Amino acid sequence: MKLKVKLLGIESGKPTVVMDDEYASRLGLHPSDRIIIKYREKSAMAIVNVAATFPRKTLGIYDEVSNVLDIRSGESVEVQPAKRPESLGYIRDKILGNRLRKREIMEIVKDVVERHLSDVELAAFVTALHIWGMSIDEAEALSSAMVATGKTLRWNKGPVLDKHSIGGVPGDKTTLLVVPIVAAAGFIIPKTSSRAITSPAGTADRVEVLCPVNLAMEEIERVVNKTNACLAWGGALDLAPADDLFIQVEYPLSIDPLLLPSIISKKKAIGAEYVVIDIPTGRGAKIKTVGEAHSTARDFIELGKRLHIQIQCAVTFGEQPVGFAVGPALEAREALIALKGNGPFDLVNKATELAGILLDMMGVKDGKGATRTLLKSGKAEKKFREIIAAQGGNPEVTPDDIELGDKTTHFVSSIGSRVVWINNVAIAQIAREAGAPKEKGAGVLLRAKLGDQVKKGDPLLTIYSRTNQKLEAALALAEQLEPIGLSKRYGEKMLLRRIPTKIPHEKVFVLER
Amino acid sequence: MKLKVKLLGIESGKPTVVMDDEYASRLGLHPSDRIIIKYREKSAMAIVNVAATFPRKTLGIYDEVSNVLDIRSGESVEVQPAKRPESLGYIRDKILGNRLRKREIMEIVKDVVERHLSDVELAAFVTALHIWGMSIDEAEALSSAMVATGKTLRWNKGPVLDKHSIGGVPGDKTTLLVVPIVAAAGFIIPKTSSRAITSPAGTADRVEVLCPVNLAMEEIERVVNKTNACLAWGGALDLAPADDLFIQVEYPLSIDPLLLPSIISKKKAIGAEYVVIDIPTGRGAKIKTVGEAHSTARDFIELGKRLHIQIQCAVTFGEQPVGFAVGPALEAREALIALKGNGPFDLVNKATELAGILLDMMGVKDGKGATRTLLKSGKAEKKFREIIAAQGGNPEVTPDDIELGDKTTHFVSSIGSRVVWINNVAIAQIAREAGAPKEKGAGVLLRAKLGDQVKKGDPLLTIYSRTNQKLEAALALAEQLEPIGLSKRYGEKMLLRRIPTKIPHEKVFVLER
Repeated sequence: MKLKVKLLGIESGKPTVVMDDEYASRLGLHPSDRIIIKYREKSAMAIVNVAATFPRKTLGIYDEVSNVLDIRSGESVEVQPAKRPESLGYIRDKILGNRLRKREIMEIVKDVVERHLSDVELAAFVTALHIWGMSIDEAEALSSAMVATGKTLRWNKGPVLDKHSIGGVPGDKTTLLVVPIVAAAGFIIPKTSSRAITSPAGTADRVEVLCPVNLAMEEIERVVNKTNACLAWGGALDLAPADDLFIQVEYPLSIDPLLLPSIISKKKAIGAEYVVIDIPTGRGAKIKTVGEAHSTARDFIELGKRLHIQIQCAVTFGEQPVGFAVGPALEAREALIALKGNGPFDLVNKATELAGILLDMMGVKDGKGATRTLLKSGKAEKKFREIIAAQGGNPEVTPDDIELGDKTTHFVSSIGSRVVWINNVAIAQIAREAGAPKEKGAGVLLRAKLGDQVKKGDPLLTIYSRTNQKLEAALALAEQLEPIGLSKRYGEKMLLRRIPTKIPHEKVFVLER
Repeated sequence: MKLKVKLLGIESGKPTVVMDDEYASRLGLHPSDRIIIKYREKSAMAIVNVAATFPRKTLGIYDEVSNVLDIRSGESVEVQPAKRPESLGYIRDKILGNRLRKREIMEIVKDVVERHLSDVELAAFVTALHIWGMSIDEAEALSSAMVATGKTLRWNKGPVLDKHSIGGVPGDKTTLLVVPIVAAAGFIIPKTSSRAITSPAGTADRVEVLCPVNLAMEEIERVVNKTNACLAWGGALDLAPADDLFIQVEYPLSIDPLLLPSIISKKKAIGAEYVVIDIPTGRGAKIKTVGEAHSTARDFIELGKRLHIQIQCAVTFGEQPVGFAVGPALEAREALIALKGNGPFDLVNKATELAGILLDMMGVKDGKGATRTLLKSGKAEKKFREIIAAQGGNPEVTPDDIELGDKTTHFVSSIGSRVVWINNVAIAQIAREAGAPKEKGAGVLLRAKLGDQVKKGDPLLTIYSRTNQKLEAALALAEQLEPIGLSKRYGEKMLLRRIPTKIPHEKVFVLER
């Protein structure tokens, strides 16, 4: 059937068209059915949105489709119902609890990347994966398919190392230390990171305080060839792009069944051969117990093996923020101070342990010792500045150059006592309320950590913000949330949580990779 | 934050707005987050679509939202992030396999009807319901919630009877006989039906051949008060409207976990107190075995009890179309002929059995005998014509008045043999290919049914269409699908299905209520 095109001039997020109900019905189309649109030599598949009030015999085209067809309003296109994608049958199989085969998973991931699946279908797939789980064969197939449907980087030198944290702990700027240490040791580590989705800072947000992170593929190659490393944003590189599309439906549902394949596929796409995975563990972390961490580690190692990536996992203490700083600029500053030799003990310890594991994997004798030497000698700092320079930042930057929010206030202790717990989620929420990650200078500086003695009136947190309004909102939130638990001795305060008659249904979900 | 409104003039199917990525980010919004829009005294909740190329500081508003706010382009609105709906937490609970409480289900259904949930969230809920199933308590809560969130009809006379088929068998025009029979017996039966979604005709499509079916609530009351019955389209009445929204996500996924609550809630909303449920059973029907039918019947009866509806179920033979006609006009004609006393045996048998069950429930002695008398005496036909007249049709209509597709052809038998099976799905597909249900005169007339002897060259099907093109397409499909199985004796042809190396993944899903 021939229809006249009307460009809508709007993005809808997927290839969508609008059609009036009468003509949709003539074509036998229901909402969310698909059509093939032919225009000259080009053709595109689109999902149909049926509208009661749209002009008859007209096809309303969103930007995603008009960009493919390169078409103007008023032109005529040939429209026909599309065959139901084969992948829909496989999604249905997964809903029914069947195991999917490699070829079937490839078909699904291909249709995800080509935007042939609607939100409804994607959501059903992700939900079914969450409920049924996936076998290691399925995880392997998903990882491979996610690599195959995106760009990949291959290096003609090697070995290629990488580091990844499954996330969930605020203030974790460890990557900013690990990458220059490993590169200073002479190894290649082309690190890509994400921005924050629900947290106060992603690694890309932290690095962006010091230099551009939005690098093209060729720039990454140039930077790595020059410095052995990079600290780039991975979001626009088209590495395992299916993941970003899965995240769009995982986010509103607060589920993350694709965590392992997502991470492994990104590592494979960047060409990594040896990877250390950080699994922060404990109350307030994604993984609650060491037992659970073991089982996750086993899956990572096996999945890595199948994709020819050698993986070791580090189960790390995740019950409080790493270091003291939470928020992009505060964290970049803390990382820089640490590289200059004055970092908080836990941050330095975590970075040298993780980097040490990578050096151990490379056969370096006493990997951890080597990393401490690289840090103390200033070689890691020098390497960090090389990377900053190569990415277009100022290599001479000092901690004092980093701009923080100029409005500050303290959240103080109401008693003299000892810090017995820190609520990660509350700290993250307060930092976000202050404006992080969007406002780079906003965030929270912890003034006391687990086990520290505090006097009445001592600051527990210093909050940084750009506006007084946000500063006050963050302080009010801190007063409401009890982010830091105080007691004379650990284990004396007996009430862990009070559950009132009306159960508040607020779980904070951390979706960061 | 204040934003300038730009009306998009398009329906998107749900309350959606578009915003540029920079301002979305300033508000801390991710795609599929919700906002509250305030304009003068009005406010609306909408789901945010983030676009890279949309004008800055502008809120693009689809029709669903502009209709609520009654606003013009260029006006200014106050926008703030909305709280995450409480129902999302409960959907998540269902994904995790928890049983939901009455209050929680009410919250979900309310948010469905108020359009506060996105497609992603609805799809996840329906998928989780399909995988985990629902307890009878959950089914009751869903039914009650679906009634409570829509309109209801209450009758000041009674008892109120109703009939429903779970569907799946083509040519099932039984309702067109049952309703006038029951009404002629002096009982009230306010029947609402759906149009076809994936089948060649729904009851509303069949009745529409004879009279209008798109009645308002007051018209239904008037017609029922006058004639004891109606045969109306239920789609625009706002009876249990949540169901129509669930169907929109069930359709692309080909799953139907809400079948029972959907049916029961529609019956409750119309005020039914005694209902007979038809469960067509057998190969090619929705329910394959009598055991399965029993278990479905038990659930219907229990669920009915909880909503104070007395239910009896009829397990009927579902392995071939009912009567000979498939397609709206062909079926209306066959029903009219049957009411005049010359109907096919199976159709008359099914109608009198179902109507008989209802009369039995009313304490009528020999209910089935009574229905046959009502049919033979012409009282049922007279009642049918009263209903047609009351709904605005021509009460004098004769079978010959009904217009059929004027292009016809035969699908003939290539051998002399006997009909040993009929493929319901193939028959439905051929009728749809011929133009049904959109073209009312299109469809298929079966010329032989199970057990019938046919000679080589005898017609098996007569296909009716409005255009030669569709006629030929339907005939070609018939030749391809083998809709009618021929063999000298039942059980002699041993190959049930051949499964080739590449398994075709085409399952036809029937979603009709």
